[in-house]
Parts: sequence; structure tokens; C-alpha cells
Amino acid sequence: MHFKKRNANCGELRKENTNKEVILNGWVQTVRDMGGLIFIDLRDRWGLTQLVIEPETNPELAAKSKELKSEYVIWAEGKVRERENPNSKMPTGLIEVLLKDFEIINKSELPPFEIIDDLDTNEESRLKYRFLDLRRPTLQGNFDIRNKLYQVTHQYFAKHNFYEVETPILMKSTPEGARDFLVPSRINKGKFYALPQSPQLYKQILMISGFERYVQIAKCFRDEDLRSDRQPEFTQIDVEMSFANADEVLELTEGFFKMLWKDVLNMDIQTPFLRMTYEEAMMRFGSDKPDLRFGLELSDITKHLQGTDFKVFSDTIESKGIISCLNAKACASYSRKNIDDLTELAKKYGAKGLAWIKFADGKVNSPISKFLTEEEISNILKETGAENGDLLLIVSDKKYKALTVLGALRLEIARREKILEQVKNQFSFSWVVDFPLLEFDEEDNRFVALHHPFTSPLEQDLNLFYEKPEIARANAYDIVVNGAELGGGSIRIHQREIQEQMFKLLGLSKEEQISKFGYFLDALKYGAPPHGGIALGLDRIVMTLCGTENIRDVIAFPKTTSGLSLMDGCPSQVEKKQLNELGLRLLKED
Amino acid sequence: MHFKKRNANCGELRKENTNKEVILNGWVQTVRDMGGLIFIDLRDRWGLTQLVIEPETNPELAAKSKELKSEYVIWAEGKVRERENPNSKMPTGLIEVLLKDFEIINKSELPPFEIIDDLDTNEESRLKYRFLDLRRPTLQGNFDIRNKLYQVTHQYFAKHNFYEVETPILMKSTPEGARDFLVPSRINKGKFYALPQSPQLYKQILMISGFERYVQIAKCFRDEDLRSDRQPEFTQIDVEMSFANADEVLELTEGFFKMLWKDVLNMDIQTPFLRMTYEEAMMRFGSDKPDLRFGLELSDITKHLQGTDFKVFSDTIESKGIISCLNAKACASYSRKNIDDLTELAKKYGAKGLAWIKFADGKVNSPISKFLTEEEISNILKETGAENGDLLLIVSDKKYKALTVLGALRLEIARREKILEQVKNQFSFSWVVDFPLLEFDEEDNRFVALHHPFTSPLEQDLNLFYEKPEIARANAYDIVVNGAELGGGSIRIHQREIQEQMFKLLGLSKEEQISKFGYFLDALKYGAPPHGGIALGLDRIVMTLCGTENIRDVIAFPKTTSGLSLMDGCPSQVEKKQLNELGLRLLKED
Repeated sequence: MHFKKRNANCGELRKENTNKEVILNGWVQTVRDMGGLIFIDLRDRWGLTQLVIEPETNPELAAKSKELKSEYVIWAEGKVRERENPNSKMPTGLIEVLLKDFEIINKSELPPFEIIDDLDTNEESRLKYRFLDLRRPTLQGNFDIRNKLYQVTHQYFAKHNFYEVETPILMKSTPEGARDFLVPSRINKGKFYALPQSPQLYKQILMISGFERYVQIAKCFRDEDLRSDRQPEFTQIDVEMSFANADEVLELTEGFFKMLWKDVLNMDIQTPFLRMTYEEAMMRFGSDKPDLRFGLELSDITKHLQGTDFKVFSDTIESKGIISCLNAKACASYSRKNIDDLTELAKKYGAKGLAWIKFADGKVNSPISKFLTEEEISNILKETGAENGDLLLIVSDKKYKALTVLGALRLEIARREKILEQVKNQFSFSWVVDFPLLEFDEEDNRFVALHHPFTSPLEQDLNLFYEKPEIARANAYDIVVNGAELGGGSIRIHQREIQEQMFKLLGLSKEEQISKFGYFLDALKYGAPPHGGIALGLDRIVMTLCGTENIRDVIAFPKTTSGLSLMDGCPSQVEKKQLNELGLRLLKED
Repeated sequence: MHFKKRNANCGELRKENTNKEVILNGWVQTVRDMGGLIFIDLRDRWGLTQLVIEPETNPELAAKSKELKSEYVIWAEGKVRERENPNSKMPTGLIEVLLKDFEIINKSELPPFEIIDDLDTNEESRLKYRFLDLRRPTLQGNFDIRNKLYQVTHQYFAKHNFYEVETPILMKSTPEGARDFLVPSRINKGKFYALPQSPQLYKQILMISGFERYVQIAKCFRDEDLRSDRQPEFTQIDVEMSFANADEVLELTEGFFKMLWKDVLNMDIQTPFLRMTYEEAMMRFGSDKPDLRFGLELSDITKHLQGTDFKVFSDTIESKGIISCLNAKACASYSRKNIDDLTELAKKYGAKGLAWIKFADGKVNSPISKFLTEEEISNILKETGAENGDLLLIVSDKKYKALTVLGALRLEIARREKILEQVKNQFSFSWVVDFPLLEFDEEDNRFVALHHPFTSPLEQDLNLFYEKPEIARANAYDIVVNGAELGGGSIRIHQREIQEQMFKLLGLSKEEQISKFGYFLDALKYGAPPHGGIALGLDRIVMTLCGTENIRDVIAFPKTTSGLSLMDGCPSQVEKKQLNELGLRLLKED
């Protein structure tokens, strides 16, 4: 295909380039025939440049331009000149290119939607025609940011002496936690590989192998029923260090985010980040990923209700639950309907109900005031810092359930009161540390690891780990920005005995330990160094940098929430021959 | 785990550091009790440092050191001093660290093999204990090189304005060429994803989407019966450019290798690389990936045998085959046995036989001399530049078969004559270009694409493509180093009509085209720019840089040729429950 190759791009020409002879390659955005002049906006990755044809001086070119339509690919040759009507909104808005010649390189049918940002096309159509959707400036911008994130990652970790190592995608299935995607083996019929949920064990083995510092931008897979912000495959920046303690991992990570925010957003973020224990985050914000850009803190009012006659509260106190209160500042004017909505939300999160106290015009108004003494109410107002016009929302339940409900209400109030809107350009980084190591799963009657089974207990909780594992804390940390978890990690167990004890607590028999994790327990026998690391959610970080809540806006070819790729129609049926080769058949359809 | 953290590593201490107080962390390589002195070699990622204990001045420490064994992890504190007996082979060989204290951080059982390079442990054991094998200095060195390759790739393509984009691992199965690995979908039962054999269509779609310059270090998968230099998953540096011609892709690639060889081996390689057509490479070297570090070229002697009475040759000439000759320099002394071995090899590559002419002491000795005229023999000697002492090996057959056989013999002669040994530290880069576009598959009675179905014909062969597609050439190029293909690429088809014609030639009906590639044909409708690119075999490049022929030496966790991971024992059986969830069952075992 012969065509004149560009010597400039559509984003770079300025007033200083006046009189320069240029050749541009790109896509026709629009053609406007103004009678006296014909304007063509030409687009490439770098921007948009206005081309102009003067029919009076170049009638053939003007005639030829009648052929041009949106999304045609052309080369265009001409001379840069200053515009008569500059457009200050466009970087190239002070100039235009007076065309000498152009040719069509490739034509385009009429696209199903226009290549502009303010698009109300439904997402289904956008995903089907992803090749066109990706041309939109917003998406191009998102992938520019995503690219910068990769580059910062490469540079930062190389500078800190990390080795980039690839770990396998075809690995062993060890069903713990989420569901594995399986890959049938043809050579070894009846056997399966699994796609990694994370390279956790491989990176720990690399530490045991003496690599000391490992980084990988790793593809990970989880066969979950998808939520709107999940994808079956996602990417994490996977990091592991030997002979490191938690402080070093945190400091390294902070440096990474500092460089990233500077390079991408030109923002200076303060390090070190605030560190908050899980306990504090739950008690104050009702969340293990608190959004610290605004207040609306919770208060523990249990102590003020020790002697209460109100049965809901006294029952909670008796069963060692908590009575916690969110002061919804300046919300005393909420209507009955508003409060009913909040109550619904509280129930959705598992609350049995929602109590409230309005404090307005110096007076208290509450359906539960008749059950409380004046002193109790006065203490509650004092404890929560209630002022005239505030609305107090109270949940009494098992501790973490009550706190979680109030955490959800806190975010809802922030949304309703447009607080999130006000803080949307701020970034508040923090670490949440000292998570519980284990949770007891009532249903399965066994412990499950809150992070994963390779997380070390805190040094000072090692005895608890053996004696009262349910209250031992993990040497684990999550990084949280604006209420979203961007990643998490831990110092790992590097002693075989502790790892075996952990597996035991999780209900794995000796045999299961060996069949599932035998090689790893083996590896721990031969001089495993102390080590720890972190995994950062790359897609989520790009979303944060781009300010989008839609994960599909930062992944080039995403799947829908039903795991479909609407562009190429996968997953799809395969030929019987392929299944035969794999030694498989489909179960009868129900 | 409390331990004293290093303030120096085991590879960096020199004479200048004498008297420095250091703390080291690492693995005990060896402990040697010399009576008067105890020596401990301590190893970490950066090297080896000798620690020394003087029992006379520090009897407690000497006693404690009795506990130490190979592969124990320790911290060690002491003062750097010059060695009495320097070891000039070790970077740290001029110093040692006189220990003040140490503690064991973690113990090790006796490893199944020693952590040294000169190891005759079988590979099976090395792969099973991969966590120990990876500690060996050679493998550590290979992964250092692999890491450098990643860094050069990131830097080079970022500098040239490429966007790094991730394409999906879960994609659509389009059985063309090699076999896909399949991934059953649980949410969409009876349907399957496939793992990518390459991101080919995605990268082309990114060009159609206006990304202009794309790079990705991409995991690719092929479910082939493995050869010793193949792995079911492998890595390629995947590159695509819009508005580019072949020259630009080649130049860009040359710059990459120039930087890589400089950064890793500190070698200056000459660019541009030699370019050779496929035709020339086959005629002169009998290979489309010729090793140009040595001569031993083939000569076409067909023209000198036009009137021959020797039926083997005249039959070949009649059926438009070729008679080609390899001058095995200075091999006239080969025994009957040697020549029988070569004949065996020729037959393995499909030859019906191997003719030979020895030229020694001014005389010709050959089993076929009685069939040839003196003029014919004299012309053959002249054409092949035969000198006293040379051995001529002659194959007459269909053109590319005869040439391929002689290409294999050429390499065998180079091995036998120790020529490969002599040139092993040289690197000879070249491009092979103008490949045939299609090959006719007699068995399936259809064309197959020599590269892949998205490769454009050469501009000047576009008419041939429609009229005599079997002789049309591709706008494709392979990069070859020392007889190995490091990668290949092409300018792609960007016009829908040509792509449809290509699919038609490959025997795809309209319906098949749409069910398999409909979305891609659609994408070509909306203004596809001219584009092309290349894919470089990352594993093979590392092998070349490391000088190893074993692909498992450059992949952290490789599979065996039967697709097994001996370390973790995958692939493995999965629980029936998992298969049920996927709507699958195993076929009965035969």
C-alpha cells in the first residue's frame, strides 16, 4: 500500500510551525463544507488537526473531498497556517493545514456510533464494536495513563533492584478461596492445569530460591460470579522481598505511589501514609478500607447504655455486641422517607433495624427516646459531638456487623450530602494494618484465612496463634485510597512448623496438606529466608488515576459481568473433535 | 522473626572496605573447619563472601558455628579485613569478614544436591527441587540476563512511543494452525475460552482502534506435542505499528537488538542487518534460517547436467527439480562409515540418496563418476570451487526438499569439523525476507499460510495473489541469528477484500469466515490503517544471550516435554465437584 507517510502528527502543530510543509496520516473526524471553505478534522493518536481546502484556488481537491466521510483513513499534505478563528480549547487550535493534496488510504462504512466522548450509546454496543469504542478520546486517554503506570512500575522496581520474573499461567489447581479456571491437558488426559488466582506460591518459592527481590505485572484469574467491578482476568503488580519486614514493604510501596502520582497526575502525595489498625478503621469508619477524605466518624456508645432498660440495647450488651452511632451532620431535616431508605440499606447489610435521634432546634426527636433516660441521651449527644441539626443513626448488633452497617450508611450519607462530589479530586492514602489472621467459618466449622494461608501472625501474637488463634493478628497490610483497596500484602510464614499449624487450623489433614501443598512445605525445609510482599491491583489503580468507576474503561478487551466478550463472541462452542482429544464430554443439558 | 538486617551484600565488599563493620544476610554455602580458623562461605543473590571465625579469640562463636550446615540462612556481623590468601577468581576474593556474631535465621535439611554449577544431577531431580536448582549461580545469571532483557524492552519501546497494552488470556478459540488450550466456562456451560497462541488479532484491532504503536511482553500458548526446545507456554515481545512499512519495522527491531546486545553483553552489533530473500537463503544455505557465521555454501549444479545420461539426475531435471551440491571443505578424508552416516542423515530429512565426489591428490573418486562425463565433473568442481581435499555432497530432488537436506548436511559438517565450536562467541544477525505467502497442503487439498492468514502479499505480487497465489510472495520477514529464528513478522492485510480472498484460499467458506473471524472482518470495514509488526521469541533470545540450548534454563518454572511441572505435580486430577460445576465429565479411559 503506497501512501505518503506522516512527518508530523495531529497533536503537535503550533503557531511556531506556520509555513511548515507537513504530511499527516490519520482518520477523518468530520468534514464541513462551508461553501467558501471545506474543513476536515483529522485525528490520530496524538490529537486533532484542522485541514482546510479552498475550493476557489483548488477546485479539483475540493471535488475530491466530496468522497471523504467520517473514519476514512487518509494521508494529507499541505502547509501550516494560522487560523482566522482560533479555537483555544484545542492544543492545535491556533493553526490549520491548507491542503495541497490528499489521498484515501482506506474507506470506512458509517460507524454504528460517532467517535466522540459524550456518547449515550449503550455499553453493549460499545463492547461489540470495541475497535471503534477504543478510538474515543477518553478511552485513548485511559490507556495512555495505563501505559504510564506500566512504565513507572518498570522503572521504579528496576531502580530498587527487583528482578522481573515470569511465573507460569498453567499451574496446579489448589481449590482454596475462589474458584480456579481449569485447563484440560490433552497429553495427560483426565488431568487439568489451573490458571493462577495469584502467583503467591511461585513468588514465595523465588524467595526461597534466593532471588531476594521479585516483581511481576501478573495476570490473575478468578472464576467468580462477576460483580460489576470484577473481571475474570485481572492484573496485579506482584512484589516480594526477602529479609524484609513490613516497614520496608510499606516504605517501598509508598515510594512507588509517590512516583506514580507525580508522573501521571503531577501531584505530590505525602509519605509516609497514615497507618491505622483494622480495629481502629472499623470502630471509627465501619470499614477496613475507610475513605478518609471526610469525617462522619462512628462513636461507640455502648458504655453509655450499660444500664439501659431498652431491650434491643441491653440484649446486645449482654451478648457482647456493640452499640455504635454515626453522626450524620446536618441531616436532621431528613424526611421519614429518607430515613426509611437508610433503614432499608442498613437491613441490606444485615442490620435488624436502624435507630435514630434527630437533634434540631435544641430538641431531641426519636422513636426510641421514650426508652432512654435523659442522661443516656445527653451522653450520646456528647459522645457523638452532636450539634443542632444533626441526625444520629444507631445500630446495635454483633460488633463487626454493626460497624459494617454503619460504614455503609456513612458512605450513603456522604453521597446524599454531595460530600463525595466535593472531595472527588482529592486522594487520601492510608494503610490498614494488624488484620485478624483468621475468621471462623460457622458453616464449615473451621477457620478461614482472612488474607491467605501464607500470611504470618504478628511476631507478638505467635503464642496466641497456637493458643487462641481466633484473636491472633496477622502481619498484613492493605493500602487504601479514597475508600478503595488498591492492594494488600503481608509478611509470610517462612517456617515449616508454623505453616503446617496454619494448614491444620484451616482444616487440612496431613494428607491434604501434602497433596495440595507438599512441594511448598518441602521448599520451606531447605533454608527459607524471612520474606514478605504485596500485590497491587493494577486495574483498580488505573481506575483511580482516571477517575472512573467502570473497570471496563481501563481494560482494552474486557468481559461483561457474565464473562462474555461481546466483540469476538467468546466463550464459544468448540468442535467435538477438540473435546475428544481432551478426553472430555459435555454433561447433558438440564 | 527478629534478625539483624544486612547493611551490605555478599557480592560487593572489596579491599577498600577493610575495617568496615558489616552485617550480611544469606545462605551458608560451605563451612570449613581448618582447626586454627573456621571459614564460612556466605551466599546471597549478589555473590559469595568468606566469613572467618578465630576459635582462639572467640571460642563461643567457634562452638556455635558447629551447628551450621549448608543452606542454613543466617545473619552475620563482623569486620572486613584483607585475606592472607587472596582468591583472584572471586570478586570478593581479596577480603573476608572476621565474625563478631551470627545467628541462624532458618535451618535447612541436607539438600538432595549441592548448590553448585558443575552438577551431574539428572534434570528430573533438578526440576522437582526447582527451588534449590534456581539457587545455582548459572541459573541466577540466566535470570539476571532475562531481567535485563525485560528492562531493555520496556525502555526501548517506551522511548519509541509505543503503548504497552495487555490483551486477553481468555479469548475465542479459532482452530487454525496449532492446537488451542481450552478453558471451560462455568457461567456459560458447554462453552469454552481458548488461551492465545499469539495476540495477533488483538494487536491488529488495536491498530484499527488508533493506538498506532503497541508493544506487549505476551504469554502465548500452544498445545503441541512438545519438542525439547518447546514449552506449552512461552513469551513473545509482541509489536505492531500503524502507517509503517517493512523497512520501518526492520529498522526498529535492529535498534532493539543493538541496544540489547550492548546492555547485556557489552557488544556492538552492526546495523542494518544483512537482508536475504527466502529464495537466496534456501539456494545458498539450504535453510530459511541460515547460520551465516561460516561458509559451506550450496551450489546449483543443475545447469551443468542438462544432457546427463545418469538417470537419477535426468529424472530430476525432467520433473523440474534441482541438483544441488555442498562442498564439504577438506573432508575428502571422510571414511566410508562417515559418508554412510551422512547418507543416513540425508534420508532422515527425506532424501532418496546422497551422491558424493571426493577430490584428493588431484584425482576424483566417486561412485557416480562412471555416469558423468569429464566435462560435467570438471564443471561441477569449478561451480563448487572444489579444491584438493574437498568432499562434494550432492542431492537431486524436488527443489526445496533437496535444498533442505543439504542445509541439514551443512550444519552436520560444521559440527563435525568443529566449525560451530570456533564461531560460538560470534553473533551473525540477518533478515530473511520475501517468503512464499502460501504453501499447498496436498493432504488437505488447500493452501495454508506460511506465516499466518493475516500476512499481506508483497505489493508487487498483489495480482499474482489473485491469479497464481502459489507463487505470490509475502511481505514477511524473519530475524535470524546463528541459524536460529528469533522472531518474525509481516505487513498485514488491512483491506477487507484481500483478507476475504485469503480466507477463501485457505478453504474457509463464507460461513466459517464469519463464525471464526467475523468480528475481525467487521473491524476492517471501519477505516483500518496500513499496519505491520513483529513478534520476537523472548525465551529464545534469552537462550542466545546466555549461550544455552536448554529452554528450561531460562524459564523459572518450566514444564517437561510431556507438559508436566515436576515441582508441583501439575497437571493433576481435580475434584468431581469442579467438573460438575463446569458441566463436564471425563470420557471413559480406553
